[in-house]
Amino acid sequence: MALLVVGSVAYDGIETPAGRVDRVLGGAGSYIALAASHFADVQLVAVVGDDFAPEDEAVLRRRNVDLRGLARASGKTFYWKGAYSSDMNERRTLVTELNVFADFDPQLPRAYRPAEQVLLGNIHPSLQNSVLGQSHSPAFVAGDTMNYWIDRTPDELAGAVSSWDLIMVNDEEAHMMTGSRNLRIAARRLQAMGPEAVVIKRGEYGAALFQGDDCFLSPGYPLRSLVDPTGAGDAFAGGFMGYLAGRRYHRGQAGGFADLRRAMVYGSITGSVCCEDFGVTALRALSREAIERRFEEFRTMTSY
Amino acid sequence: MALLVVGSVAYDGIETPAGRVDRVLGGAGSYIALAASHFADVQLVAVVGDDFAPEDEAVLRRRNVDLRGLARASGKTFYWKGAYSSDMNERRTLVTELNVFADFDPQLPRAYRPAEQVLLGNIHPSLQNSVLGQSHSPAFVAGDTMNYWIDRTPDELAGAVSSWDLIMVNDEEAHMMTGSRNLRIAARRLQAMGPEAVVIKRGEYGAALFQGDDCFLSPGYPLRSLVDPTGAGDAFAGGFMGYLAGRRYHRGQAGGFADLRRAMVYGSITGSVCCEDFGVTALRALSREAIERRFEEFRTMTSY
Repeated sequence: MALLVVGSVAYDGIETPAGRVDRVLGGAGSYIALAASHFADVQLVAVVGDDFAPEDEAVLRRRNVDLRGLARASGKTFYWKGAYSSDMNERRTLVTELNVFADFDPQLPRAYRPAEQVLLGNIHPSLQNSVLGQSHSPAFVAGDTMNYWIDRTPDELAGAVSSWDLIMVNDEEAHMMTGSRNLRIAARRLQAMGPEAVVIKRGEYGAALFQGDDCFLSPGYPLRSLVDPTGAGDAFAGGFMGYLAGRRYHRGQAGGFADLRRAMVYGSITGSVCCEDFGVTALRALSREAIERRFEEFRTMTSY
Repeated sequence: MALLVVGSVAYDGIETPAGRVDRVLGGAGSYIALAASHFADVQLVAVVGDDFAPEDEAVLRRRNVDLRGLARASGKTFYWKGAYSSDMNERRTLVTELNVFADFDPQLPRAYRPAEQVLLGNIHPSLQNSVLGQSHSPAFVAGDTMNYWIDRTPDELAGAVSSWDLIMVNDEEAHMMTGSRNLRIAARRLQAMGPEAVVIKRGEYGAALFQGDDCFLSPGYPLRSLVDPTGAGDAFAGGFMGYLAGRRYHRGQAGGFADLRRAMVYGSITGSVCCEDFGVTALRALSREAIERRFEEFRTMTSY
């Protein structure tokens, strides 16, 4: 029940109305791995520079994230800095320094190749394909992408997406890829690109899942305090795919929609926790017990 | 099980990317009454002008809406015209002619005064108070308002709200009234103004309900086709309060949160139906059977 994750490991500078931090552990790969680590063994493929601190590596290691696929390159770690508007609904990127991430060429350690579940984080579609090509016919493949690749590499993206079992995007990306803001229509068009299942993330409003003709809606957990939304979508993806990996979920699984529904709720929970402190702080402090408590709380908020 | 509703009955001109209509039956009172009529007897208090057509009156009458409280004044019926942006997320008001609505002074027919449930639609807070003063100690009072009254008559509004059991506003209004975009904080502050229960409507994303420390979240039903969002919030309010009136819901009801949860789902359903055609067209054609079918469909989309 290993989940193979490829994605960025980065240093982030973050400004929100609740405060600011700089050079903290970030990147989609970190958020995904930490969230997923509560449900499954995580094998991370990423690259960092020689400035990557042992204490940041220890954050991942303490959550038992397998780091044999964490390459170290000469140079600096990917650095990103952003600032949120006063209502946190808009984010401005202040700095993007790709550094060693610019030449990222993900190599799967031999031990990673049999991974049954794969989550292809948001990197160049050709690199997503390369990771998939190195793995031994996984049982379930999910992929994420972003506006940058949708705009600039639509053909490579379409090629990559066609071999995924599930595509996970946010509502803006779904609109960009399909031309529709209607959830059902966007999902249909994304399914037509290959994936049987589609997850459309809607930030604080939750997420929608489509598989075949089935649909499941998860509202967002109402936060007591929103400190920093950075990484929430990745933490959602990590909780979602971590739960599925823990269940050894595979394509064509009989009655699998029940697992997918629960994965949506677990994703909502890890995504919500992520927002309660800066960077990965809240995810680091999380426990499976706390996740289950919130799951039960969430159930009382959504049952009727 | 009569639900007393006060609100506007109007003629609307509506432009959406799906088309345009003009001088069609509209106004919050019409949407609320039609949606609620599937669950309870509705007594409507409103005013129209002498241009109000018999066929529009017949639309309400066919749904058994009690129109003894529909006053006729000399002059023209309230006219509103608006246009939606291409993604329907923004609405521009093109014309507002209050006409006879400007001098609306709601008078309750004697038969309306014992109504057990009251829904005070979005009119001047003093008029909302006047309606409440004319009724005989109803068992449950819900009220709506809008940015206009929040801005211009905050003191009268606070006075009115203090005697409601439930306040129903959209997220933007909740933010205006409380200064917070956090659902939990906004709900707490609204509760501190008087109402034990708070419903915050979030458009296509559904709605959130708070009562005491309890919370319930309903996602929005994913529309097959969005034709015209006009009146969706009012149709939500009508389905919500109609269901409660049908259950003879009253303040302090033991185990009442179960009824409130279901009211949220019924509100989501009537609100969603409303968007599927122009004006009240889809609500007119609705049946209780169709509502129950969508309720079951919604349940499969939200259970886990």
